[in-house]
Amino acid sequence: MARGKNQNQRSRSYESDDHERGACEWCEYALVITLATILLIGVSALTVFWVFYYRDGYDWADTPDRQFNLHPTLMVAGFVTFSGFSVLLYRICRCFRRIYVKLLHAIFHALAFPCIVIGFLAVLDYHNKKGINNFYSLHSWIGFVAMGLFGLQYTVGFFSFLLLLICNKGTAAFRASLVPIHAAFGILTFVLGVAACLTGLTEKAIFTLGSDGYATLSNEAIVINAIGMSVVAVAIVVLYTVRGTGGYRLRKVAAQHPS
Amino acid sequence: MARGKNQNQRSRSYESDDHERGACEWCEYALVITLATILLIGVSALTVFWVFYYRDGYDWADTPDRQFNLHPTLMVAGFVTFSGFSVLLYRICRCFRRIYVKLLHAIFHALAFPCIVIGFLAVLDYHNKKGINNFYSLHSWIGFVAMGLFGLQYTVGFFSFLLLLICNKGTAAFRASLVPIHAAFGILTFVLGVAACLTGLTEKAIFTLGSDGYATLSNEAIVINAIGMSVVAVAIVVLYTVRGTGGYRLRKVAAQHPS
Repeated sequence: MARGKNQNQRSRSYESDDHERGACEWCEYALVITLATILLIGVSALTVFWVFYYRDGYDWADTPDRQFNLHPTLMVAGFVTFSGFSVLLYRICRCFRRIYVKLLHAIFHALAFPCIVIGFLAVLDYHNKKGINNFYSLHSWIGFVAMGLFGLQYTVGFFSFLLLLICNKGTAAFRASLVPIHAAFGILTFVLGVAACLTGLTEKAIFTLGSDGYATLSNEAIVINAIGMSVVAVAIVVLYTVRGTGGYRLRKVAAQHPS
Repeated sequence: MARGKNQNQRSRSYESDDHERGACEWCEYALVITLATILLIGVSALTVFWVFYYRDGYDWADTPDRQFNLHPTLMVAGFVTFSGFSVLLYRICRCFRRIYVKLLHAIFHALAFPCIVIGFLAVLDYHNKKGINNFYSLHSWIGFVAMGLFGLQYTVGFFSFLLLLICNKGTAAFRASLVPIHAAFGILTFVLGVAACLTGLTEKAIFTLGSDGYATLSNEAIVINAIGMSVVAVAIVVLYTVRGTGGYRLRKVAAQHPS
């Protein structure tokens, strides 16, 4: 009986029964995890460094310019670092029981949620204080769609994949049919978040340094460009893990070697 | 003998033997093709309209500002329209013989190639005439990587998948091993091209309209934002066709109904 239950758990958490493996797949698995962790933490760390070193740190009520600094920092943390970790962990941690992976996925998105909300309120309040119109730029249009999708995905995901577990058997077919839609819109939200970050960084570089100042490629311009290129690198690694071949192979290696 | 040859051709051009299909899959197939065609042609048409209506058309030697206009038009045509059609056709035209699909894929990329080269030379010459530094912005960094990858992909693809067909049997294993790498780097090049277009449009809007002018959301600002959002929509449709489920289902429908 206990053995049967154990086998059932294995079939729920493992995706492949193929035990053949090569050193190459292990190297790929270790390389992607290491690279992704460095990039995901690095991109937020670089943004915080940029704000403290060049943009005078953070504030809320007293200095609008320092209040604005919360916007890029929290949006990069929410849309790139936490969302990236959430997607990545869901794809590569198939060795754990599925419910723990789901909870990990939800927790990282729960960390991203307040970042995105406060990051949005920070720029809205900054615009209102400075008398700047809202939602005029391409960056804001892309960001608006990304935020809407993020909220929708989180709500649907939370209710469908966690709360509906109260009635596990009765909702299994519905939940299974929702998985590919949730995954597709999740990747879309992540890509839109990345596009919003890149257009936002371009805007910020020109507004802050001026078109002539940006063209001289000062140290600050290099740091802003480096944040942008790190965001691109994160997107490449995350998209690599979720695409067919790469993702499958990584999941297979993870399933064969539970930690 | 003739029947055997015919069967062999079928196995080379068809991916699935599963003849089960639903009206839903047909609708999805027709919808994606129609939507993609409208968006891919529409995004270039909108860019040409923007240049003629708001930016005084095209030129080369005499007026640098009109020479610059070639840059966004040709880059959108090369990186989005032609590359998008090339990727899309390769994924959904599996009903034709593979060599014809390859040639179609190569022809669309061959159309993208001069667009990207002339588009790049146009902005380089414009910068030199105006005394503006080259390769200082995040846009230019992303664009530089995208152009490099495009050239590399085209060269490797042309030699490996067309020229090596001279020795078909001897190179089959090598070509097969190269397919997933070529596909992954192809998607990466396309995504980087899209990111370069979005950051470039943001730059152009601020440089041309000024930060205050852009914030008033004039008609030209709306047109520039609309081009950007169309580029995002193209990216969504193309990425949808190349991802596991959607791409597979589209290929399956195409394979079951050769035209």
